[in-house]
Amino acid sequence: MPVNRKRLLEDLRTLATFGKCGTGVDRTAFSGEDVAARLWLRERMQAAGLETAIDGYGNVFGRMPGRARAVLLGSHTDTVPKGGWLDGALGVICALEVARCIAESGTDGIGADAVSFQDEEGTFMALLGSRAFCGENVGNDIAKAKNAAGVPLSDAIRTAAFPIAGRAALDPSRHVAYFEAHIEQGPRLEAQGIKIGVVTAIVGIRSFRIAFTGRADHAGTTPMGMRSDAGAAAMAFANAVDQRYRAAAGPDTVWNLGVCTFLPGANNVVPAEAQLGFQFRDVTVARLDAMEHILHEEVARAATAAGAGSTVTKVLETVPTPMDAALQGHLEAAARAQGVSLMKLPSGAGHDAITLSRYLPSAMLFVPSIGGRSHHVSENTSDDDIVTGADVLLDAVRRCA
Amino acid sequence: MPVNRKRLLEDLRTLATFGKCGTGVDRTAFSGEDVAARLWLRERMQAAGLETAIDGYGNVFGRMPGRARAVLLGSHTDTVPKGGWLDGALGVICALEVARCIAESGTDGIGADAVSFQDEEGTFMALLGSRAFCGENVGNDIAKAKNAAGVPLSDAIRTAAFPIAGRAALDPSRHVAYFEAHIEQGPRLEAQGIKIGVVTAIVGIRSFRIAFTGRADHAGTTPMGMRSDAGAAAMAFANAVDQRYRAAAGPDTVWNLGVCTFLPGANNVVPAEAQLGFQFRDVTVARLDAMEHILHEEVARAATAAGAGSTVTKVLETVPTPMDAALQGHLEAAARAQGVSLMKLPSGAGHDAITLSRYLPSAMLFVPSIGGRSHHVSENTSDDDIVTGADVLLDAVRRCA
Repeated sequence: MPVNRKRLLEDLRTLATFGKCGTGVDRTAFSGEDVAARLWLRERMQAAGLETAIDGYGNVFGRMPGRARAVLLGSHTDTVPKGGWLDGALGVICALEVARCIAESGTDGIGADAVSFQDEEGTFMALLGSRAFCGENVGNDIAKAKNAAGVPLSDAIRTAAFPIAGRAALDPSRHVAYFEAHIEQGPRLEAQGIKIGVVTAIVGIRSFRIAFTGRADHAGTTPMGMRSDAGAAAMAFANAVDQRYRAAAGPDTVWNLGVCTFLPGANNVVPAEAQLGFQFRDVTVARLDAMEHILHEEVARAATAAGAGSTVTKVLETVPTPMDAALQGHLEAAARAQGVSLMKLPSGAGHDAITLSRYLPSAMLFVPSIGGRSHHVSENTSDDDIVTGADVLLDAVRRCA
Repeated sequence: MPVNRKRLLEDLRTLATFGKCGTGVDRTAFSGEDVAARLWLRERMQAAGLETAIDGYGNVFGRMPGRARAVLLGSHTDTVPKGGWLDGALGVICALEVARCIAESGTDGIGADAVSFQDEEGTFMALLGSRAFCGENVGNDIAKAKNAAGVPLSDAIRTAAFPIAGRAALDPSRHVAYFEAHIEQGPRLEAQGIKIGVVTAIVGIRSFRIAFTGRADHAGTTPMGMRSDAGAAAMAFANAVDQRYRAAAGPDTVWNLGVCTFLPGANNVVPAEAQLGFQFRDVTVARLDAMEHILHEEVARAATAAGAGSTVTKVLETVPTPMDAALQGHLEAAARAQGVSLMKLPSGAGHDAITLSRYLPSAMLFVPSIGGRSHHVSENTSDDDIVTGADVLLDAVRRCA
């Protein structure tokens, strides 16, 4: 039994009207559009026969009645500013559709509950909703959290005034697994013409602010050998670390020098400071450790060679999150049973499944992103690929019984 | 006969009170402080028995009466914002002191005229004063010139309202040579404990804006091999050009990557654009040409390797200006006669002597800059070194007779 294609796509398109922004959506956490979308979602869950709950953060939870045990499915309905229509929304509406199909199939086996978590994107505090849903103590983090405009999260929670009702929370005695469908947000599935990605792990991220400090000499009157050139140190570091990472990389390792600014920033002044933003991602802690070691070695080497000072500040560290092997097996079996091409790949971006995997066996399914685009109004996936993803997800949930 | 140490230093210190800014001077061209300093200078020239002239730009000229031929000496009394007390001022007051000494020596041989040119620093238009003094057609450039705040030069000229009098102009039938004393603005003399620099040439400068353009992919979800990374192109270019320039460099070649900015500038986004500011300087056109050729080759190579686009825009080109060999010989002979250490070196910065050398045999003498600092309030030279420079200058002028 496949999913109801028309119902699935209509709900996705209706959800995209909340915060519509050209071909995309601007529906940041706690905005008026976000609140309206979550209240609409609760109505759709109720119409599907689910018992709904909503908490003060805006987590919306739909519980299938009459089942002692259930698979939890979901993602988030908040977006980045000027984001795409599918990121997060796809996983939530697929969860709703799977729940509807399970309910309609009339069996009294395992149930399916659906959830939309709040602020996965971190407008105020990344993964706020899934952490609160899982019962983590988020009070201290909430007290410190602000958005980019400086608005405190506590004010945003008050302003949104979600109509708290029921209990939107993980239930370990009930929930046996967590599934999250998501767009790939990258180009790999499309490039290989593959329809389903089975996520092996969500990568760990380490992100750094690196500063080299030299002396702002006159670039005409100061001989090359008498300079302390922070820019030269930055360039030497970037090339050395790039070469060593190529040798150290696994198949899924990525790294990025995304920020580079020289100060004072004039053609005729030797750079006194180079400010870099650098990060890398991989699925194993051992490789992340090795890469961090290389980073520190090459910063020190480049600074010494240029007669510059250096500082390294770690601004983010997340651990790799392996997905559950048995659930990956269900996704693979489902795809094979339906004759759908699949590949196994890591997720290079973070997801609510990071939180859920601390409490439940968890897994993720990717559908192709056209042009690999996400977090942008041009983000898209073909209708056929969306429906294929939902069908594989439904099949995999049934295999959990 | 040496210069009058007390008179020289007192005039320098009095001039530094106009626009005093901590230990430095803020006396940009056409400011109230600049106008007041130039009127004071005219009085000092008159007190020295020179016939003075001032033009509408603020060039102040003192002509020694009773001599058919004269050496022209000078520099500029305008400064950069928050600049040093000696840059330009040293050459002007040394010129005045040399003229006083020549007049006092009572010979009826070759005379010495002194001049302070306007806006050498380019607050509105670099070398404006010396170009106008030499009779160049500056009208079109003046019509376009503005300062950093957008004030048109023509407005600044009107506001300054210099009291035009006499004829402040080069006189080819009279002037046989141009000498300009200046602080080195670099660290070479001090580092070697040498008191006099005889300038061999003023370097030519070529300055470029370089842009690499790639694609702003997600740095977590886009595999390394599927990126178009403008930042990686910039880094590869910078290192390649640096290595090739080390091989191609002459003893006085310098280069600088002074500007580097990645856009959009986030740790988790592959740079879509890298904006660079790059320049190099040398004393020969052949080497400048070779370096520019290397630059274009390495920009193209780096862009191709990174799958990025590139543009190169030349924003400045000045030709190398050799100093007159005979006048350099006079400076060397003077230093040797006085038992003062000297070295020959190029000027890595521009000076009014660039303009004068198009019309007259021209030469420059450097005195040491403490810490190599200039264009900053910490700019300084010891009193002894200033007086030594003036003595050598006076001796060299006498050798022109």
